[in-house]
Amino acid sequence: MFRDKIKVLDCTIRDGGLINNHNFDDRFVREIYKAISASGVDYMEIGYKNSKELFSPDEYGAWKFCDDEVIKRITDGIESKTKLAVMVDIGRVNLDDVKPASESPIDMIRVASYVKDIDKAIHMVNHFDEKGYETTINIMAVTRSLDSELNEALHQIEEEAKCKIIYVVDSFGNLYQESTEFLVKKYKEILKSKEIGIHAHNNQQLAFSNTIEGIIHNANYLDATVYGIGRAAGNCPLELLIGFLKNPKYDIRPLLDLISKEFIPLREKIEWGYIIPYALTGILNEHPKSAMALRGTNKKEDYREFYESFSASDIE
Amino acid sequence: MFRDKIKVLDCTIRDGGLINNHNFDDRFVREIYKAISASGVDYMEIGYKNSKELFSPDEYGAWKFCDDEVIKRITDGIESKTKLAVMVDIGRVNLDDVKPASESPIDMIRVASYVKDIDKAIHMVNHFDEKGYETTINIMAVTRSLDSELNEALHQIEEEAKCKIIYVVDSFGNLYQESTEFLVKKYKEILKSKEIGIHAHNNQQLAFSNTIEGIIHNANYLDATVYGIGRAAGNCPLELLIGFLKNPKYDIRPLLDLISKEFIPLREKIEWGYIIPYALTGILNEHPKSAMALRGTNKKEDYREFYESFSASDIE
Repeated sequence: MFRDKIKVLDCTIRDGGLINNHNFDDRFVREIYKAISASGVDYMEIGYKNSKELFSPDEYGAWKFCDDEVIKRITDGIESKTKLAVMVDIGRVNLDDVKPASESPIDMIRVASYVKDIDKAIHMVNHFDEKGYETTINIMAVTRSLDSELNEALHQIEEEAKCKIIYVVDSFGNLYQESTEFLVKKYKEILKSKEIGIHAHNNQQLAFSNTIEGIIHNANYLDATVYGIGRAAGNCPLELLIGFLKNPKYDIRPLLDLISKEFIPLREKIEWGYIIPYALTGILNEHPKSAMALRGTNKKEDYREFYESFSASDIE
Repeated sequence: MFRDKIKVLDCTIRDGGLINNHNFDDRFVREIYKAISASGVDYMEIGYKNSKELFSPDEYGAWKFCDDEVIKRITDGIESKTKLAVMVDIGRVNLDDVKPASESPIDMIRVASYVKDIDKAIHMVNHFDEKGYETTINIMAVTRSLDSELNEALHQIEEEAKCKIIYVVDSFGNLYQESTEFLVKKYKEILKSKEIGIHAHNNQQLAFSNTIEGIIHNANYLDATVYGIGRAAGNCPLELLIGFLKNPKYDIRPLLDLISKEFIPLREKIEWGYIIPYALTGILNEHPKSAMALRGTNKKEDYREFYESFSASDIE
């Protein structure tokens, strides 16, 4: 699949940081930045821009805050055409902490938002747009949004938001081809002046497939992570996506080295990927937090009991 | 997705046996048969029917041969509606070894064939059909077949073969949605009197997705294995497929128990699944045998070198 407008965004450090409280050391992040740059990937999302008034730097690593000087420590001396992105959550960032883009190593700010917070997300992207950043709105948990409310949010974004890119985010790993097609087509139809992105989770081993489905229906911004790292089941594996895309600017080989040297050892220390409790929350369209909690107990392999805990009718 | 005609075939022991020379002990196979039966899966393929004149029982386990009395040892005393299947390869079975279906515990015989051997496959399915078995032809390695030759083979099957089911087999794990759609539609169009099946390999984490794509385009026979076990990258995970299908006759819970108790420990002993060299042979449309060989060496994680070994132009 070759389409010049396609852009790949690596969110290894940002989404992977949700597993280890963003505690990746400088050496590791530099190795990733080097490999991502050498492989021709368009963007690298390096973490969250959270307020230190809300989260303690004693409890979280540097990639929860993404101070400009810390980012410069990573990128210093490495040749790269890869742009840098950070993610912000509604209500967790102090807007005054963010300098104008001209004074920052950051190129893009992505605002993660639920449908209910879309007013706030639009306010934020417009603020960052004025400061000179590329911006996106990533609408989380769309598989649980009421269709009428999602439609209204999309119309509002089209009319009011200055960001150029809106993401379909399958937070729970519940989408498959037909539901992905439905959403991407809907976004394309309403968001006539925007590009569409897709961020898929891999609970049911469908993240890569749903990303391809996005491509088929003209999504041009594609999220992925090295070796699929990310919270719970993880994300679309970047190496598979690069293996699929035919644009000669991409090179899979630096990613292969990176996985050999860094990710095979890392996977022995922290857990992500195809793990049955995450598959089950994906099938059931549930947040993975209950499965993540289970994995920290001695019942971590008691899949049937975990599955049956969702069958009770006490949420009626 | 609910369609009454859909049949699920578990090939855990048959395809999984390619990892360990078919050396599963009776206790393990009985546990699988129990769980497959309890989960309502329609067929269980229990191994190959190979000639003992060609393969030594000293070298291979019981599921390379599938003697009737060995199968009866497994099924004895277990209540089940699941039909039993075996696979045969062209030139590796003595037809006289196969008793009439009325005297055998086996219900279905599946003939695995390359396009070039389709005459022999038709002869074999017609022979087994006369003996009273359900039969299928599984056309292997279709991603490497010349389209004109595949078309000719399909027309010949439609005209001459008595089997009711023809499988699309993605031997190398190279298919994605659009290529799966192309093949399933082609099979449906030519094989007007037959049902279509799909057997997908998981090199690129697309086996489940390609199976769903098959369903969307009216394939009704679906192969899968417990926890995706199978040679190299393995197969479509049965638990995901059962979680997707909406027919109330299927129950995911016995499979969850089976994975907890049997497959988590087994995966510590033998290897299958998402492993980069298998992903690369899938991307490159190559047989996984070179990657399987690599995994037995001390270069097993040298992915870049492995990848680059395919780039040489010496096959020109």
